[in-house]
Amino acid sequence: MTEGIQGNEFLKLVPPLQALKVLSEFGGLEPEAAEVADAVGRVLAESVVVPHDYPPFDRATVDGYAVRSLDVQGASNGVPATLESIGRIEAGRVFDGRVGPGQALAVPTGGVLPRGADAVVMVEDTAEVAGGLVEVYRAAGVGRNVLHRGEDAGEGQILLVAGTRLRSHHIGALCGLGIGTASVVRRPVVGVLATGNEIVSPDQEPGPGQIRDVNQHAMAAAVESRGWRAIRGGIVPDRLDELTASVAGLLSDCDVVLLSGGSSVGVRDLTATALERLGGRILFHGVAVKPGRPTICAMVNGKPVFGMPGHPVSSAVSFELFVAPLLRSIEGEVFGLGEMDVRSWPDARMWPTRQRALLARRVASVPGRDEFIRVRLRRDAQDRWMADPVPGDSSVLTSVVSAHGLVRLPAGLEGLEAGSEVEVLTYG
Amino acid sequence: MTEGIQGNEFLKLVPPLQALKVLSEFGGLEPEAAEVADAVGRVLAESVVVPHDYPPFDRATVDGYAVRSLDVQGASNGVPATLESIGRIEAGRVFDGRVGPGQALAVPTGGVLPRGADAVVMVEDTAEVAGGLVEVYRAAGVGRNVLHRGEDAGEGQILLVAGTRLRSHHIGALCGLGIGTASVVRRPVVGVLATGNEIVSPDQEPGPGQIRDVNQHAMAAAVESRGWRAIRGGIVPDRLDELTASVAGLLSDCDVVLLSGGSSVGVRDLTATALERLGGRILFHGVAVKPGRPTICAMVNGKPVFGMPGHPVSSAVSFELFVAPLLRSIEGEVFGLGEMDVRSWPDARMWPTRQRALLARRVASVPGRDEFIRVRLRRDAQDRWMADPVPGDSSVLTSVVSAHGLVRLPAGLEGLEAGSEVEVLTYG
Repeated sequence: MTEGIQGNEFLKLVPPLQALKVLSEFGGLEPEAAEVADAVGRVLAESVVVPHDYPPFDRATVDGYAVRSLDVQGASNGVPATLESIGRIEAGRVFDGRVGPGQALAVPTGGVLPRGADAVVMVEDTAEVAGGLVEVYRAAGVGRNVLHRGEDAGEGQILLVAGTRLRSHHIGALCGLGIGTASVVRRPVVGVLATGNEIVSPDQEPGPGQIRDVNQHAMAAAVESRGWRAIRGGIVPDRLDELTASVAGLLSDCDVVLLSGGSSVGVRDLTATALERLGGRILFHGVAVKPGRPTICAMVNGKPVFGMPGHPVSSAVSFELFVAPLLRSIEGEVFGLGEMDVRSWPDARMWPTRQRALLARRVASVPGRDEFIRVRLRRDAQDRWMADPVPGDSSVLTSVVSAHGLVRLPAGLEGLEAGSEVEVLTYG
Repeated sequence: MTEGIQGNEFLKLVPPLQALKVLSEFGGLEPEAAEVADAVGRVLAESVVVPHDYPPFDRATVDGYAVRSLDVQGASNGVPATLESIGRIEAGRVFDGRVGPGQALAVPTGGVLPRGADAVVMVEDTAEVAGGLVEVYRAAGVGRNVLHRGEDAGEGQILLVAGTRLRSHHIGALCGLGIGTASVVRRPVVGVLATGNEIVSPDQEPGPGQIRDVNQHAMAAAVESRGWRAIRGGIVPDRLDELTASVAGLLSDCDVVLLSGGSSVGVRDLTATALERLGGRILFHGVAVKPGRPTICAMVNGKPVFGMPGHPVSSAVSFELFVAPLLRSIEGEVFGLGEMDVRSWPDARMWPTRQRALLARRVASVPGRDEFIRVRLRRDAQDRWMADPVPGDSSVLTSVVSAHGLVRLPAGLEGLEAGSEVEVLTYG
């Protein structure tokens, strides 16, 4: 079995979009109720319907005078309309009278439009004149500078659809509508585990041939920086029984497990064997992408388990391209994961931080798989954004540390000339 | 005084880049020590120097055979080099022998390069043959597939400069170097306060003319979604004494205070007067930007206090354009805040989430100030990104709720034609 996987590995690389399609088929997590005030960044499990008209009354949208539109028809600087000023109403108060023909009532921004009036003229287009009069220098059609009851959001209308990740504006709108709780999807919990006989904890002094753990902590930080919870499973040696037991333990507490294996063929086979021992089904074993090729994904007890590449750069790229989208998807976010377009992948829904730039020097690429090079961004003397490729292959940790982002070289390309316009997928 | 501010308001609008320059002059918060494992998203207060060479030994970067480069010179499929296979070393172990002339030692990815060897040939370019021999089908120059000690990061070199916001990759690298704590800048604490006689709490039923608080909660959520801490100061009526006392109270606990005033002129004057009462100096009172014009900034006891616009859309835009950059700046992040370019502002450092698109229909714009319109993104039949302007002015809450991002119409422009290529500043 192990031999079989090893021998056929290069034949079995899946195209990246097929890997995403496979990942998009994992089911979502269950919904839970959340206080709206604490729900920024959460994903709606159910659409939110507007419970009552908003605003709840006709409001002035500027400081000015509530008038009857007919009374200011044709008003101009040369020929102002002159109206009787009948007073002033404060925000939060309702005028108990009525604006009659030839009358004007001063209203603040946000104030209730008084009965009788059908428009508001801006204070800048008026002047108070002697005798309790106000001159109006500009016409105002019916409804001018008024936000009518329910015009912003009408009762029964869908305000936000299920699958939306709540931004601060959404929180504000929910508060404005008096919606105190929302049904959101539970946040995923991700177990991360480092494997490798040569790996020691960062707080240990490595012995000869040993090296400190990078990937477990980088993966946990990547999970936590997006608001998800990470459980650090520690470091396990390259032994099938211990690896199997550790994965089983993490699976009982987590929705997704990430194994940072080594990048050696033997270790990758060990990971695959451990996942099969746990009754897992290998969904893909290697992706046609560089770096990130030796990414394994299995379904164990219905949960996704990834064998991540051992090189830190490969692990980081594979996290961004495959793991983060999977986590967003099981958290209920709808962003077209299973239907990415090969021309534009990863698109703005999948990777929103990006910057157009000119490639500062030629880069070569291996045709047949998508390649992601690391670049640094800078402004040149003509104030154009330039992308400088960062030297070092995927074994070089600092090549991702110093990068501002990635540039995709599509599978069909043999490279890109200096001066080519590229879209840098930035780290934000 | 109040009259003076009101009367001169239109003369006193500052250009947005001048407002940013003023904001960039606020000093940074103090540093504190943080555990690296918990430091993702924090900003480095001091540069980090590499404490010892990384990797700590010469490592193989692929699975293969450690050889002497001279022994495989000119090797090819037709004329392989045949070497004596002297065994296999595991990751984490050091070979206690030496690779002599004509010999090869199997090494895994990440394994220690044995003494005597100066290159690694990939396993894919070799075959084991009878008699304990290995055939090599490809030459490997000195250092091929080897990452030398200190080649990734050399002792004494600067790994990360002060002002860097730590990403997951940085956390991984710090762990790999055994750096357990880092000096980071304290996170800002932001007080938010709603003002207005007409405003009631979201959990209250509004009476006639009243409306539920949107902005306090939207601003708090915007603060918290970026990892900063918000203190909700509640709702205060439009009364100078209460407003002054509430701001003073928040200032004692917070680094920055945001007042969500109404958008009426009277309320804005009240805010300015309260800030002056507290000994504050008004830094700007109105910005030449739409929406977001009635944004006030004062320095009170050395701390920035903002009077934010009352319209929810204006408040949201002003937060993104002015408040968030100020907070990043006092948190120590270096991103060119005081030196933005008028052509490219807000650039990718200031607003990293963006997408090129074609404007779906013509939009008009008022020359003389930068305007930000709300748009929704979609793919058209030819798979191009199209930006549809969202109807509704800045008093319409749902115009920002349903938007995917903003498009800037620079101050000199009278509008943009349908089909124009625009850069959408997306909400990520």
